[in-house]
Formats: sequence, C-alpha cells, structure tokens
Amino acid sequence: MYDGLTIYGSTEFLSNVAGKESLFLCTIATTETSRIEGITGAGVTPELTEYTPAADVELIVRGAPSCLPEIPQTVVGGVSAPTPAVITKAALELANIPFLVADAGAAIKPNLPYIKINDQAGKDIRTGKAVDSAENIFENAKILGKTLSQITDHLIIGESTPAGTTTALGVLTALGYDASFKVSGSMPENPHHLKKDVVKEGMENAGIPWGETVKDAFQAVEAVGDPMIPAVAGLVMGSEIPISLAGGTQMTAVCALIKAINPDFDFSRLCITTTIFVAQDATSDINHIVEQIGDISIYAVDPYFHKSDNEGLQTYLNGSVKEGVGAGGAILAAMTQGISLDDIRQKIEKLCQEIF
Amino acid sequence: MYDGLTIYGSTEFLSNVAGKESLFLCTIATTETSRIEGITGAGVTPELTEYTPAADVELIVRGAPSCLPEIPQTVVGGVSAPTPAVITKAALELANIPFLVADAGAAIKPNLPYIKINDQAGKDIRTGKAVDSAENIFENAKILGKTLSQITDHLIIGESTPAGTTTALGVLTALGYDASFKVSGSMPENPHHLKKDVVKEGMENAGIPWGETVKDAFQAVEAVGDPMIPAVAGLVMGSEIPISLAGGTQMTAVCALIKAINPDFDFSRLCITTTIFVAQDATSDINHIVEQIGDISIYAVDPYFHKSDNEGLQTYLNGSVKEGVGAGGAILAAMTQGISLDDIRQKIEKLCQEIF
Repeated sequence: MYDGLTIYGSTEFLSNVAGKESLFLCTIATTETSRIEGITGAGVTPELTEYTPAADVELIVRGAPSCLPEIPQTVVGGVSAPTPAVITKAALELANIPFLVADAGAAIKPNLPYIKINDQAGKDIRTGKAVDSAENIFENAKILGKTLSQITDHLIIGESTPAGTTTALGVLTALGYDASFKVSGSMPENPHHLKKDVVKEGMENAGIPWGETVKDAFQAVEAVGDPMIPAVAGLVMGSEIPISLAGGTQMTAVCALIKAINPDFDFSRLCITTTIFVAQDATSDINHIVEQIGDISIYAVDPYFHKSDNEGLQTYLNGSVKEGVGAGGAILAAMTQGISLDDIRQKIEKLCQEIF
Repeated sequence: MYDGLTIYGSTEFLSNVAGKESLFLCTIATTETSRIEGITGAGVTPELTEYTPAADVELIVRGAPSCLPEIPQTVVGGVSAPTPAVITKAALELANIPFLVADAGAAIKPNLPYIKINDQAGKDIRTGKAVDSAENIFENAKILGKTLSQITDHLIIGESTPAGTTTALGVLTALGYDASFKVSGSMPENPHHLKKDVVKEGMENAGIPWGETVKDAFQAVEAVGDPMIPAVAGLVMGSEIPISLAGGTQMTAVCALIKAINPDFDFSRLCITTTIFVAQDATSDINHIVEQIGDISIYAVDPYFHKSDNEGLQTYLNGSVKEGVGAGGAILAAMTQGISLDDIRQKIEKLCQEIF
C-alpha cells in the first residue's frame, strides 16, 4: 500500500484517512520515574530526561530547543542518535500538517504556545502515587477531543513521555494484562527486570497485590501510570473522528484504559501507528499486548534508514532509538497525503545536517 | 447584505469569508486595573472582575462557570444583564464553529483545556508597569497564529479583558492617537474622566509625558496596556489568513500596535466585527479611532433585542452591556455560514432561560 509499511490488522482505517485533512497533536508529560538510573535513554542524564518532551516540541516548532542548551540525543557507542522529533518535523512539514502541543503534565514547560490539559507532572511510580486525579485529566481532555473533532477530519496523537514504557507497563499490569517483558524501550538493551521491579514496588505501595487487578480504571493510572495515558484516552473518547495513536507500546496502555472505562468501545475508529523498530523489536512484543485488548490495527513504518549515509540515523537500525514524538505516525500521515518515503527520508537527513 | 448589519468600509472582507471554514479563538487576560472602583461593569464587585474571563469561557464550553459560584452578570436597575458570552455561545453552536480559548495572561485560569500564550496577568496601569515583556507575548502568539493559519480559513479572535477599554486607551494614547472620551465601556455611564486619569497617572509613572508618544511600540503595552493586546497583534502578524477582530474599541488598540510594529501592514486582511451597541454608542467613537489608524472595515451587528421579551437582553438596549467575548463577531460569523439572525436570537433567548 505504502513503501516501507507493514500492516498488522485491516487496511480499512488507512483507506478512510487517505487524503483527509489531518492534525498532529503531541501530548507531553513526565513522571519522576524517568530519574531512575538506567530506566530510559531519553536524555543525556537521568535528571535531564524531564527536559526531553519540552526540548522535542521546541525543536519541531522553533528548529532548536530553547529550554535546554543541548539538543536531546541518545549517545550509543560514541555516536549520537538524533531524537525522533526530527523525523516528525520532517514528515509534518513536507505534508503541511499542522502541529499542536498539549501539556498533559510535563515538569518542564516548552517555550511556545501549547494547550494545557493538565499542569502537574507525575511522581515516581515506586511511591504508588504516580498521578493526582487521573479522572480530571481524562475529563478535561475529553473537552479538547470534542473541539478537535470539529477542527479536523483525522487526528494524529503523538506523545513524549520519558520512561513511558515503564508507566505503560504499570497501567497494563494493574489492569490485568500480561505485559511484563513485552513493552518496548528507548535503548538497545531493554531493562525489563528493572521496569518490572519498579512497577511491582509501586503496586505494593499502592496496596495492589501483584497478580491482582484494580477495580477502578483510573486507580491504575493514579498508582503506577503517567498523566499522558488518561489525557490521550480522554482525547479519544471525547472525539468522534478517526484517530491515529502515534506511538509504541505506550499507546497500548491508552487502549487498555479506554477499554477499562468502556468495555464496549469500538476500536475500529482507532489505529496504532509506529515504526518498524518497535513492531519488529526482539526485546518487546506490541502485538502480544494489543491482541489481549481488542481488534486494533497496527501500522508500522520502516523509514529505510539503511539507505541513509547519516551515522546518527543508522543508530536506529541497532535499536538505539525506536520511536517517540509520534515519528512513525507522522511518516505514515505524510504518506497518506501523497508524500513519498524517499522524500521524507531526504528531508530528515537535511534537517539532521542543519540541526545537529 | 445580512439582517441587522451596518457596514463601515468595504464589503470585500465579508464576501471573502462567506461559507469558509472558520475558527473562533477567545483570548482572555486581566490586569489589576479592573479592581479600580467604578472603572468596569464586568463583574459584581471589583475583585470579582478577575474571574469574569474564566467564567465566560467556562460558560461557553461547559454551559456554566466552574471557577465562580455565580454567573457573571451586570446588574442595572435591579435587572441582570446576561454576559455577552451567551450570545457567542448561541451563535457558534448554531453554526458549528469550533471555539478555542487562549490565555494571554488571565489571573484566574479557566477549568478547561486552553492554549497558553502567556501566564502572567497584568498589573494596575497606574503603576506605569502594566505588562512584563510584551514582545515575548507577541512573539509567542505569532507562532500560534502561524499554526492556526494551517488549521482554518478564517480566524475570528474575540477577547475577554475586564477594564480593557481603559488599557486600550492607554496604548492608543501612548502611541499618539486621540482616543480620550472615544473608547467604549461596559456600563451605561462611561467613566471617561476616570479612565483618562488612570492612563495619565500610568504614563507619568512610566516616564512618558502626557502628549508625547513612546518610541518603542511594546513600551506602550508594558507601561499602560494589557497582555491581550500584544497577544492578538501577534496572532494577526503570525498568520496569513483573513482575521475578524471580534470586539469593540479594544481591538483598535490591537490595530494601533500592529501599525506601530509594521507601518506598512496591509489591513485589508483584517476587519473589526462588533455590535451596534458599540458602533452607535453615544459615549464613544470607534470610527474616529479607526480612521486615525488605517483603512479597516468595521462590521456592526444589531441582534434585534428589541424584538425579544427577555428582560435581561433588553438591558443591552440601554447600554448596560455592549460587547464582549466576541459576541458581535460570533453573530456575524454564524450569518456568513447561512444562519439567520432570528434563529440566533431565539437560541440566545433559549440559552438565557436555561442558564440564568
């Protein structure tokens, strides 16, 4: 159907949105979970991970981060892997798709106009008290989802949430899904044992025995989740249009929350769009998680970085970075607007040269 | 052309936007100027005026304010005049025009998703230090204006800024315009002497001698303006689409700032849309101000409240309320989408019965 695209599920959603007016909303959030040593690669030091979402969206809008002196990059084997924000920027600019930022609770706010859904960042999930009033975040986001339905025909929701696969694991586990050793990660080595231990400690401190599930859907988020998850669930449930959830295994936690809130929710209006680096990741299994939730198509894009001479982009091939800031969904959205994959990759290379 | 419409200038803008996809953005801001006794009617007490913008937009989105126990109403002669937010709500809902809120610096934040342009509210302009970094507000708003240009074909910008005609007078005066006794007001008696004294005191404290003009455009805002003015100027100058400035004499201060920033700005892309209660107000003169700035068409809508049995709406006929929250612009935008004035008035009456 499109170059580099692998489809898990149906092509129907894709046909529905082809050529339609689209809008990209990047939801940003942080939790202090990302400060745990070794849990995420989304930042040069654990402390700097909280700057990554703001820096990413500033890079897309302003061409450079202004909240940080340095551009977020993952350094692996002496080579810097450029943030996936550069992929998102390239694809959206080529396809002239508008880009908006929504704050679901980021500790560091970006220096640009953004939509406030929730102000407060999440805490370390080991406390078992990760997020305050997840239902308020959800209800507020529903209002925005309704408004955005009036504004566009296809909403693409990306996210930037450091250590977000750990908090996704928390929500999935607390809701009763088998997700241990299945969530993705931002580094070649996926620290599954650490993630599981962190979630387990959080559940214990929240009074949720390991192996048991919470009765109230929002309790899972409040105990061991992050603010992005109820925000994106609210955006989806408040809207009435096709929505691409542009992200990796973190978006499965959003789907799990939606199903917990409304077990009859019709998932045919949604899809998950991601990169081949997530979908074919040997250290995780997005399909295994999704199958437990419902009939949700996954579209995985391969940006063909093996064709690129750029050293930074080549690091993606060994799993240094897999996804983020809706990179896979942005590429696919651009392709549904008639932009070729080769043009997108060339634009990514050009931006890499200009920015880094 | 449309029922109840008086045109000052050309019909060209109106023809350009008829039937086009529109988006309404309500810009909210406060300054402590509104706490001055007798300066504004936009609130039951001077202290409560700072709640009015948040309450207005909550009324439009949620059907009731949640930041205040009471709905903002101006009480004149024992009869409550409903906030113009109800007019905006009726018109936009009938025409299915999306409504977004932008915070340019409101002291009280609305309990709903909104776009943050600037966080900090303005101070009392008598200090001569009303607004911090007006240029930052302007530059941030430019980014949003650019994005909104990608999203819609016609942007309608309303505002809710208590005591905003006084701060508009400040900016107009500091930029060298003859506006004393010409700005509108929210009460039947327009406290022109008080407004002038307040502006004069502010200019003196800012070191701008009365009768002299500032050299730097943003200095006028920082001394005696409000945060809404640079925000809306930035939205306009960052965008490339037709824009309706939905408001009264406050929007002339926006136009004056735009001209000060770029003396060659082409105003044919803009219009001012307001109500007949402003345009034909014996206590003010919007046309006199606009003529000094440039060739800007003014469209003034008469909602025909004399046809209504609603006591509250009838108070508009004696000048109790004249404009606000982009009421005039919202009615006109709905009419350009084919909605009749009678249908809009009936919807306003219906909402008044339900809400008040």
